[in-house]
Amino acid sequence: MANPLTQDVLVDPVLLTRALVDIESVSRHEKAIADHVEDVLRQAPHLRTDRLGNTVMARTDLGRDQRVALAGHVDTVPIDGNFPSMVSEDLIFGCGTSDMKSGIALALHLATTLPDPRHDVTFLFYEAEEIESQYNGLHLVSQSRPEWLRADFALLLEPTYGLIEAGCQGTLRAVIKTAGRRAHTARAWRGVNAIHAAGEVLRRLADYRPRAVTIDGCTYREGLNAVRIHGGVAGNVVPDACAVEVNLRFAPDRTEKQALEHVQEVFDGFDVEVTDSAPGALPGLRAAPAAEFITAVGARPEAKLGWTDVSRFAAMGVPALNYGPGDPMLAHAPDEHVEIGKIRDGAATLHRWLGSTQE
Amino acid sequence: MANPLTQDVLVDPVLLTRALVDIESVSRHEKAIADHVEDVLRQAPHLRTDRLGNTVMARTDLGRDQRVALAGHVDTVPIDGNFPSMVSEDLIFGCGTSDMKSGIALALHLATTLPDPRHDVTFLFYEAEEIESQYNGLHLVSQSRPEWLRADFALLLEPTYGLIEAGCQGTLRAVIKTAGRRAHTARAWRGVNAIHAAGEVLRRLADYRPRAVTIDGCTYREGLNAVRIHGGVAGNVVPDACAVEVNLRFAPDRTEKQALEHVQEVFDGFDVEVTDSAPGALPGLRAAPAAEFITAVGARPEAKLGWTDVSRFAAMGVPALNYGPGDPMLAHAPDEHVEIGKIRDGAATLHRWLGSTQE
Repeated sequence: MANPLTQDVLVDPVLLTRALVDIESVSRHEKAIADHVEDVLRQAPHLRTDRLGNTVMARTDLGRDQRVALAGHVDTVPIDGNFPSMVSEDLIFGCGTSDMKSGIALALHLATTLPDPRHDVTFLFYEAEEIESQYNGLHLVSQSRPEWLRADFALLLEPTYGLIEAGCQGTLRAVIKTAGRRAHTARAWRGVNAIHAAGEVLRRLADYRPRAVTIDGCTYREGLNAVRIHGGVAGNVVPDACAVEVNLRFAPDRTEKQALEHVQEVFDGFDVEVTDSAPGALPGLRAAPAAEFITAVGARPEAKLGWTDVSRFAAMGVPALNYGPGDPMLAHAPDEHVEIGKIRDGAATLHRWLGSTQE
Repeated sequence: MANPLTQDVLVDPVLLTRALVDIESVSRHEKAIADHVEDVLRQAPHLRTDRLGNTVMARTDLGRDQRVALAGHVDTVPIDGNFPSMVSEDLIFGCGTSDMKSGIALALHLATTLPDPRHDVTFLFYEAEEIESQYNGLHLVSQSRPEWLRADFALLLEPTYGLIEAGCQGTLRAVIKTAGRRAHTARAWRGVNAIHAAGEVLRRLADYRPRAVTIDGCTYREGLNAVRIHGGVAGNVVPDACAVEVNLRFAPDRTEKQALEHVQEVFDGFDVEVTDSAPGALPGLRAAPAAEFITAVGARPEAKLGWTDVSRFAAMGVPALNYGPGDPMLAHAPDEHVEIGKIRDGAATLHRWLGSTQE
């Protein structure tokens, strides 16, 4: 198949968004899109291109003082009657328009049209972000090609509707278990009801007052919530076990270890079993390229509350921000779409930021 | 197949127990046992025998002042490597030995060997007690042959290990639901956590102080327990629904309606949805045949805390007791067994009670 990412398309981030959306790339089926992206990057003489699985990396090596990374995933959630793309007035509809082919369109446009950026740039087009972490291209790169992630600052082009979302909160899931002793409910006093015992766990959750932490002007609002509860044996049995799964979203001033210690403190006296944990990422707005980027956007950064791949950069000591033209509220929705104006704004911003070495 | 319930077997309640155990009769497969039981009852000239499905009724009509009912179910729970029966020293092992073929052996032995009882007697051998109430033979009789249940006193030969267990407690199950509003856990303050809201339900359960009610010398200990809890949408979603199923076991001085009002009062402010309800039964120890029976056993009655079919008699205004040779702790267990001595004691007691019109 001829590469749809022609020069005419690459110079126009709106056309490029549509062209990328029209290459089907549901997670684990990213070969075609990676092939086309790799192909156009290899044709750019100012870039050194490499590939790991279906993750493609391209970088300038201009000897600049600073290096920035621009990253985005090429996969999408499964198609839901929204393929191929469709334009209606100033909107492009289709699977991945917002999350995040409009974002990678900006990166690919910049990579192929800006041979002389102000900072050295590493572009990362990675696979399998929408599924289990073990397949995540950025994760695989961090394991076997960590040098690809080295930079002074990273921008993840996830949908933020043109806002800057800084850092990300960490997340920890744990199961709090209560134990009891079974008995027939007709002789309940012979048993110990584990569901009743879970009442204290829920009381502590209801009484919990989450912190709001301001770092570099960004306010992270923590939260501790029960996300699941289950217990019970039969309609006539005093239950001997109950489990409450809680999710702590924690500000990036806590490490994963500190987050766990906090949860153990909240549920002191109970058995706490961690099921899932991922670190947060500090906003890192003080790095010089970050400050310049904020100036280029001209908007105050806000705290990123959800967890994103920026924390993979943060784990490598690279400050990272989220910034993209898509609307995060539309991600994964059948009517997913992106505003054409936001794509043009995004391209202009990135050119303002990296385009002029004379400024 | 020849009827294994021969005259030699019918005169010996121990042999009769084994013979009945060796006729497989898991719930909904009671035709064979009902056929054999009906056959021997029809051969007894002092009995009038009738049948409804696989429930067999036989009665004397001697013009006595009082009528007593002796009832037992012929079905068993599924066989669990414990068929056919096996004798080891003074124990008979096998599915249904305790619950309750040793009980119906007493009734069938009495029906076929005592042509001249002190009171008129109605014998009921009924199907499908171990499964959903809609199939229960005694329930079906109460619906379409209520006259079969008319008596001044009823004895249910359920396992009580030779003790008298009087009346039974009622049972009510209800689901208490809490509602909330979904939100991503990273923005939990936008949601309302329904699992946290269930904490108040569990608090009231933990604080609940059940009554102990003494009626006719029998003490009924009530209980209110959570038997199941479930809630949760996904690991990153503030849940919008949680449901706690509770089971109230209530003393027979409360009606079902009063029991429900009590539960509604305990969970005032919450949505209470009844899923299951069955009335209790007053011990009814003042009926003359009951008093005589207690004298014949020579032991103080105790309150029956579990729910049994005695409440079906109670609903017809017939006082009823549980009394049987089996051990209730062994019911439904793979090593279910009955003590041969308890069977002989039970037969002697019933003969003492109903056998002599000269006393």
